[in-house]
Formats: sequence, structure tokens, C-alpha cells
Amino acid sequence: MADATTSVEALKDGIRRFAAARGWEPYHTPKNLAMALASEVGELCDILRWLTAEESVAAASDAVTRAALADELADIANIVFLLSVHTGIDLSDAVAVKMTKNAIKYPAPA
Amino acid sequence: MADATTSVEALKDGIRRFAAARGWEPYHTPKNLAMALASEVGELCDILRWLTAEESVAAASDAVTRAALADELADIANIVFLLSVHTGIDLSDAVAVKMTKNAIKYPAPA
Amino acid sequence: MADATTSVEALKDGIRRFAAARGWEPYHTPKNLAMALASEVGELCDILRWLTAEESVAAASDAVTRAALADELADIANIVFLLSVHTGIDLSDAVAVKMTKNAIKYPAPA
Amino acid sequence: MADATTSVEALKDGIRRFAAARGWEPYHTPKNLAMALASEVGELCDILRWLTAEESVAAASDAVTRAALADELADIANIVFLLSVHTGIDLSDAVAVKMTKNAIKYPAPA
Repeated sequence: MADATTSVEALKDGIRRFAAARGWEPYHTPKNLAMALASEVGELCDILRWLTAEESVAAASDAVTRAALADELADIANIVFLLSVHTGIDLSDAVAVKMTKNAIKYPAPA
Repeated sequence: MADATTSVEALKDGIRRFAAARGWEPYHTPKNLAMALASEVGELCDILRWLTAEESVAAASDAVTRAALADELADIANIVFLLSVHTGIDLSDAVAVKMTKNAIKYPAPA
Repeated sequence: MADATTSVEALKDGIRRFAAARGWEPYHTPKNLAMALASEVGELCDILRWLTAEESVAAASDAVTRAALADELADIANIVFLLSVHTGIDLSDAVAVKMTKNAIKYPAPA
Repeated sequence: MADATTSVEALKDGIRRFAAARGWEPYHTPKNLAMALASEVGELCDILRWLTAEESVAAASDAVTRAALADELADIANIVFLLSVHTGIDLSDAVAVKMTKNAIKYPAPA
């Protein structure tokens, strides 16, 4: 799979079916998922907390750290997808709405 | 835009170009982005912290709270996309690798 | 008030009485408080996210940013105190136990 | 040690000396400490994320979970203390200032 050829819906569907097959849906309230997200983002911060900015850039090229970062990014992305599934909020639509607001708030230099 | 017809790459490209047009790229180290993610997830938690699980489910159907949740989900998604862009980690690939691991760790009941 | 002459209990008591006077206790379950903590830590991260390490050190000497940091530190500390109150976990004791564990895990160089 | 007889300064001093003995001070910039705090709060959220509010209350009475909560609370408290040490912000003072502000923002019912 690759981001260029994968729809957001396909990823949402993958984690939705994974959770459903394990009977996890009752746990996936927006409140619990937000808390799970804080937990997973904490794990990402754990990898990077003592690194300098430059070391954090280099970390993405180190095989071991890169795998750890990818692992955490996947966990985070999956919870974002579950939040989209369980709130019914379309991510692409929410992003488009927010970008329009941000384009006004932060106008690009001419 | 809608998740069914939007590729992950399209969303990544949208926020990448938005940031580039504003000269924000030097700030987008993995370390800074992880910290930004903790900040945005904190805003999501702010909306939900005093709600019961049931109220958090209902919140997604209330027009005002739904818009607030969508706003935060968009911010969170955009930072996840920027992390993917600036680490070069393909999200679809990272999710696929993690799902394979998790399928072994949490086998589905027969 | 000053840290040198203020007991941990005095601060715990202050926020406990503040919350009780407003009828907030039913909201202060460990789950809700942990989520509130994620939210407040997110606000601290918001102040620091785009700063370099050096700028984050300098920020503590800038009057405006220092006040903002103090404001967030107070919110964070108060929620830590409420967690102590509502779980009955003595912070001084928990810290002592953890320091003993950490002294073994991370021995000081001779 | 116990919160009733322990000053905030004593706890700040304990972790300051622990870190100094290990040469960790150069890592303890406000930025790094805020990120460490996001990480530790994530570990607290990890314990509580799938629990109901009631289960989170009961968790504080279960010996195993209580020890896990105490462990995370200690980590969180120590980072709050290090933030106080390295910014020079007195916690007792910051809390007093914030409580005065909050007493106006949220007046107690008559």
C-alpha cells in the first residue's frame, strides 16, 4: 500500500473492520479515543523528547528509530481514523473546511 | 472532498503546499511536529474532558460541538500528514505493517 | 506563598476546597482528571512548540511568556494535586518510591 | 515522606539533585521538559483510556493499578518540579495567582 494510491476511506475501513472483528467497538467512544490519542502521541513524544531538532530530523533516517516512529505514526493515524468513523466526521471535508479558515487567518505572502 | 475519493497523498500534498507557501518548513522538524500534535490533541481532550462516554457520543451529533470536533480533527490530521511528509514515512505502509503486527498480538476470535 | 514554606498538602487542600465550593467533585474522576491533564499539558506545549531549545530557555525570562508559562504550570499542578486527592495517592510518598526505583535503574556515576 | 509534612521545595530539590548527579541538566530545557510531560501524561492516559469513569475510580483501590497510577503520578510530578526549577517559576506562587484569577472567572455560588 502507498499513500499515492490509497484512499482515506480504505484506511478507515481497515481499522474499523479490525476493531469490529475483536468486539472493540463499545470502547470506541469519542472520549476514550481522544484519551487513547493522548496516550499514543505521548509515545511519539517519548522517542523525541531529549533529541535536538537536528537529531529529530536525523532520527527519521536511522533504521531503528525510523521503524519506531513509523510504528507510533501508524497507531496515531489509526485512532484518528477511528475518531472519524465513530463521529461520522469526514476527514477530507474537515481538512478542506479548516484550510479555508486558515488561509484567511494566515494569508500567504504575495 | 470526501474520504472515499481522496487519497492520503492528496491531503499530505495540500498541507505541505500550504506550509511551503508561508515559509513554515524550517519549523516542521519531527520534534516540533510531535509537540504540536500533543498541543492539538490537548485541544480535542479539552472538548471532551468533563463529558461522560455517552455525552461524548452525543456530542458528535450536536451541530456546535461537532464543528469544534471537526476543527480539532482537521488540525490533528494535518500534523500527522506533515509528520509523514517530513519523515518520509508512508502512512498507508506504516499502517499496513502495524496491522500485521497487531493481528498477531491480538488474534481475532474464531 | 513560596515553595520553601508551603507543604504539598496545603496546595492540595487549596484546590480541593476551590472545587468543592463549586460542586465540581463529581467531575473529578481519575479518568476525567487524566484527560484534563492532557489538555493542560497541550496548552504548555502550545507555548513552546515552535521555539528552539535556546528560545525555550529564554522564554522563561521574558515577562509575557513567563506569565503564560506560570499560568499553565499552575493549571497542570492543580490537576496533579486533584489526582492525588481523588486517588488518595500521597505525592511525596509516590515520588520517594519512584526515586528509589530510578536510583537503581539509572545509577549515578561514581 | 508525606504531603502533610513535605514542602514543595523539598521535592523540587530531590529531583534537581537526582538529575544533577547524572549530568542530565543540559537536557532539561523547558521545551524538552514539556515534551517529557506530554509523554508521561500519555502513560497515565494509557492506564485509564478504556475504563469507564466508575472503573477509573475503582482502579485507585486496586493494589496493582494503584501502584501503576502512583508510578505515573510520581513521574509527572517530578517533571512539573523540574519545570519549576529550570524556569525559576515558584509553583506555590503560580498556583496562588491562578486561583485568584479563577475565583473571579468561576465565582462560587452564594
